[in-house]
Formats: sequence, C-alpha cells, structure tokens
Amino acid sequence: VNDRILRAARRQPVDVTPVWIMRQAGRYLPEYRAVREKIDFLPLCKTPDLAAEVTVQPVRRLGVDAAIIFSDILIPTEAMGMELELGDRGPHFPSPLRTAADIEKLTVPDPMERTGFVAEAIRKTRAALHDSVPVIGFAGAPFTLAAYMVEGGGSKSFILIKRLLFEQPKLAHALFDRLTRTLIPYLEMQVEAGARIVQIFDSWGGELSPRDFETFSLPYLTRMVRALQAKGVPVIVFGTAMSTHLPLLRKTGADVLGCDWRIELDQARALAGPDVALQGNLDPLALFLPAADVEHRVADILRRAGPVGHIFNLGHGILPPTSPDAAKHLVETVHRLGCHVTAPPTP
Amino acid sequence: VNDRILRAARRQPVDVTPVWIMRQAGRYLPEYRAVREKIDFLPLCKTPDLAAEVTVQPVRRLGVDAAIIFSDILIPTEAMGMELELGDRGPHFPSPLRTAADIEKLTVPDPMERTGFVAEAIRKTRAALHDSVPVIGFAGAPFTLAAYMVEGGGSKSFILIKRLLFEQPKLAHALFDRLTRTLIPYLEMQVEAGARIVQIFDSWGGELSPRDFETFSLPYLTRMVRALQAKGVPVIVFGTAMSTHLPLLRKTGADVLGCDWRIELDQARALAGPDVALQGNLDPLALFLPAADVEHRVADILRRAGPVGHIFNLGHGILPPTSPDAAKHLVETVHRLGCHVTAPPTP
Repeated sequence: VNDRILRAARRQPVDVTPVWIMRQAGRYLPEYRAVREKIDFLPLCKTPDLAAEVTVQPVRRLGVDAAIIFSDILIPTEAMGMELELGDRGPHFPSPLRTAADIEKLTVPDPMERTGFVAEAIRKTRAALHDSVPVIGFAGAPFTLAAYMVEGGGSKSFILIKRLLFEQPKLAHALFDRLTRTLIPYLEMQVEAGARIVQIFDSWGGELSPRDFETFSLPYLTRMVRALQAKGVPVIVFGTAMSTHLPLLRKTGADVLGCDWRIELDQARALAGPDVALQGNLDPLALFLPAADVEHRVADILRRAGPVGHIFNLGHGILPPTSPDAAKHLVETVHRLGCHVTAPPTP
Repeated sequence: VNDRILRAARRQPVDVTPVWIMRQAGRYLPEYRAVREKIDFLPLCKTPDLAAEVTVQPVRRLGVDAAIIFSDILIPTEAMGMELELGDRGPHFPSPLRTAADIEKLTVPDPMERTGFVAEAIRKTRAALHDSVPVIGFAGAPFTLAAYMVEGGGSKSFILIKRLLFEQPKLAHALFDRLTRTLIPYLEMQVEAGARIVQIFDSWGGELSPRDFETFSLPYLTRMVRALQAKGVPVIVFGTAMSTHLPLLRKTGADVLGCDWRIELDQARALAGPDVALQGNLDPLALFLPAADVEHRVADILRRAGPVGHIFNLGHGILPPTSPDAAKHLVETVHRLGCHVTAPPTP
C-alpha cells in the first residue's frame, strides 16, 4: 500500500516524493470527457459509480500517489439550501445571499442525508483501487464558500462579500460559523467513508489583506483543521495568491500548506516555518514547456522543498488543453528525481 | 507648489505623507459620470480638453497630491496597429495576436504622431491646475500589454500568453522588445509634456512565477525604468499579487514599488530593502468601513511604512460604488496623520 502522501504530510521519511495533481480528474483526460458526454457536472458529482470512475482514471493513467474524490467545493452549499448551477464556465447561484434573512434561512444539514453520495463515491473509489493509494477528501473554506454564495459566482473585485465583512461583520461571522458547522461534519463523513487525508480550499482567501484574513478566515480554518485532526487524518490548506499569508496559515495547525506558483518553496519554507509540510508548486502552464525544461523545473522545486515534508503538485488546477502525456511525464519525473536531488541538473 | 509625491518618491523628508488614488478619475465621481454620459471611454481618452477635465476633477474634490492623466494602458497598442475596444466591462481586442505574422505586423509608432493627444491632455491639465500638483504619466508593462493583446482581453488562467512564453520564447521576447521600444518614447513624450513622475502598471506580472517574471518581464521593466530616470523623473512600478516578486522588482532600479493590500508594508519593506520608496496599500473595499475604522487602518499603514519614502494609495483602483466622501475622508486622514504617527490609535 502506497502511503507516501500520508508520510510526507506528517514530515516522515519517504522512499520517493509523493505527487498528485489538482483537478487530476478533469477535462484534459479523454476518458473523463467521454463520461461527461453522457452526464452533466453536478449530476456526475451525485452519481457515486461515475464519480468513482472518474476519480480512479488519473490514478490508472498517471500513477499519482493519491486519488482526490471527484466533487465540487460548492456541493455543501446546495445541501444548506442554496440553488446551485455548476458547469464548465464556473459556478452560479441564481439567488445569491443578499440579506440577513437569506443567511438565516440556510440550514446546517445532516451530511449523510443530504450529501451521502460523496461518502458512497469514496467507498466505491476505495473498492476500485483496492486501497492501493489513499483517497483525499476535500471541502471549501467558509470564507471562500461565502464569497461564492454572496457574489453569486466568481468575482473580480469581491465587492459584495467584502462589503458584508466591512459593513455587517457580525452577520458575516454568523454565516462563517454556520458554514463551519456544516463543513466539519461533511469532512468527518468523508473520513468515515475512508478518506485518509483532507484538503481545505480557501480559493479566495488571498483576496483578503492579512488582517482581514486573520479575522474572517483563520478562526474557521483553525476550527476545521483541529476537528479533522481529531479524526486522525492530516489536513492540507490551500489557496492561491496567499504567499504573504503563510505565517498566518501556519497558525491553523494544518499539517500541510499548499503553495501556488508565485513563490519559490524555499521562500515559502522561510515564511511557514520548519514544522509543517509544503505542497506544490509548478505553474500548471509549465506543462506546455519542452520535456527537458519540465524536468529542470521539477528538480528545482524538489531541491528548494528539501527531501522531507514535501508533496509535489501543481500550483493550481491542471488546465483542459494540457496533454495527458505531459501530466504523466510530470508524475514520472517527480518519482524519478524526488528525494534524490540535491542540486538542479544543468539546464 | 506641492512636490510631496516627488520628494517621497526619492525618499526625501516631507511635511505630510502624499496621497493619490488609483483610478481617482473614475466612475465613483458624479462629475466624471456626467462627462461620460456625453462621450465613450476611448474617445474621452483622445479628447484632450475632456481628458484634462476629468483628470483635474479628483484633485479639486479630494485634495490629492498628484493628478494622474486620464488615459488607458492599452492606448499604445492601438497605435501599434491593434484594433481596440474599451468600455466599462474591460478591454477587448477583436483580432488578438495569434501568429508570428500578427506580431511582425505591429509597428513601433511615433508617439506624437499617433498618441499626441496624451501629451496635449497633460499640457491642458497642467494649465488647469496651474502646476499646483505634479502630473503622473503612465504606461503598461510589456508583459501585461502582451497578455491583453494575445488573450484578446482579460483572462483567468492566461493560457495563451503563457503558452507563447513557454512554447515560443523567442517570439515572446521579440514582442516584448517591440512593446518596450514603443513604450519608452511614449512615456518620454509624457515627460516632455510635463509629467513629473511616471507609473508603470505590470498588472498581470503577478501571474508569473518568480523565475518567469525574471525572464519575461524584469528585463523590459528595467529598460523602461532606466530610460525614464535618464529623463529626470522618478518611476513607480506597480502590480497586484506581486508581493513575492518584490526582491526582483527592486532590481529594476525603480524609485517606488507599489504594493497591493495582500502584504503589510513593513513586510514589504523587509522584502524590498531599505533604498526604495513604497506606495500603497489600503484595500479599496476598506473605504466601506465606518470612518473610525478607516482612520485606524490608515494609521496602521502609516506606522508600518515609516515616515520616509512612502506614498499613500489604495492597493488597487478605487471601485465605482465607493462614496466620494469616503475617498475625501481618506485623503484628509492621510494628511492629518501622515508623518506624525508612531503607533496606531486605540481601535
């Protein structure tokens, strides 16, 4: 059984640096697109057989060291009572949160009752893989989910969610608390179904200044991290454009901090301190470089990360036009060079 | 004559911390919207009388320490031969750069011949203000302009421009070189018309990893900074999500580095080193906070920046729903507290 990712998350020695890829079950894979021709994104998330099938696809093709369950961070918001539309063009809430009454109406759902299909997909994935690699469970961070729910979808300036923080901070905290009380049992359910490590995506946390991140995101991340660690699994916290928040993120007590490609991992290590693992951080677009250049960049990342406490990944999700062969070459390169590199090869 | 911004840019003592606001001539001002009811964005940029009028508006209303000329970073791309559409929903190039031949067709225009209206607007602004405050000239950075020209507008993942960098680096460098040879004379023209300080916007530079930023943006920024400094004006370089690039940005030799709100200015100072001024960095959304909280945040920024080498600004452009009174209160607060603050007031 391959437990490299669990060992690396706990800063234990590994034979080879573990690697997985954010959005590894996705549109860049022809076998995923074949499934998607038959079913839309949200129904796919809710059909355990098919969700397990696409979850397993990249493990088979790429040889990654973990399977991240195919789902979406916004699934729990629907369970709370939000109408949700998901598609390749991004999420959309036709009735975004606009008033205190809208927020008051949100329920704290029973996770098995409303989102049991995620647990079922995890069980089916484990069976299909014969537990050969760990399954990663995941959820969004309360701030990030609230940003989507208030803005109604993605945003450029995050005017509405930030106005909520700045003009009605008590109401914002009430929303974050309700989300936290939803997300902890939701992740606990995933662990009970067999997820052996979880990642929390604070995708928009980097939009906040350090002081606002500390006030409006950090306390809820910390609650989630502690609750999941109490269930015996290591926790990864990831966001983009959050390099300057690394010293704060460390305070969550997370086992692993995910880094986007905007920072070198040795610089990230200096900010995050010695007692946490790091995940990352190749620019997803670097998979369009010639193979030799990819190898050089992988070696450089491995060298900067050091041999202990590093989970290799892209700095963000893999993009649809990426070649599956480039992804496979990346995984092979990490496995070939990881834990053996002390200096980058000559370019 | 108020030369605070020039003195602060050169790290000379000032009586009061200077302040201006990115997009201070914009839709949040009713007098700007009144002008825009009569004329579209791009024609407004090309009509010196009206461009000067909206440039002067925030100086009169807010009492800021500089007037930034009303224009757009994409103006020079049209002069190079690109068809350009500008509007409140963002820029659009109907025929983006897609081939080597597209790039080869771009001209290096004579700035007075093709963009003389910018110089004329600067002269009219100076006359209207009787040179009471300095005029700021500006341009985009080559990487940022290329990103717009290749993507055809804004982008989420910058797939096309990054594929150009990674798959055809020589062609990318040829494009950046041509842009640099356009932008230096374009800024020199602005200085000759009376701009006394210039800002270079590398709005998308933060999308690049440090190594790619160093390869594909830094050399061209450095050429621009040196050329403009040779004309006797201080140079500000600004981008968002670029905190981790501050040690690299320092290598441009820029007089001032602009910071977004994602980093505290004392942390920025540690990364940028002692011999450069800093500009920033209040979150534009913080103008929706109660007045007392804004004052507390201003005091905190001033304290972290220190009394020398600081130009106060927002960390990004002011947003349309902002109250003009909140902007005025910000300027007054900086003028009241700047250079006198050693510790933040009790919140």
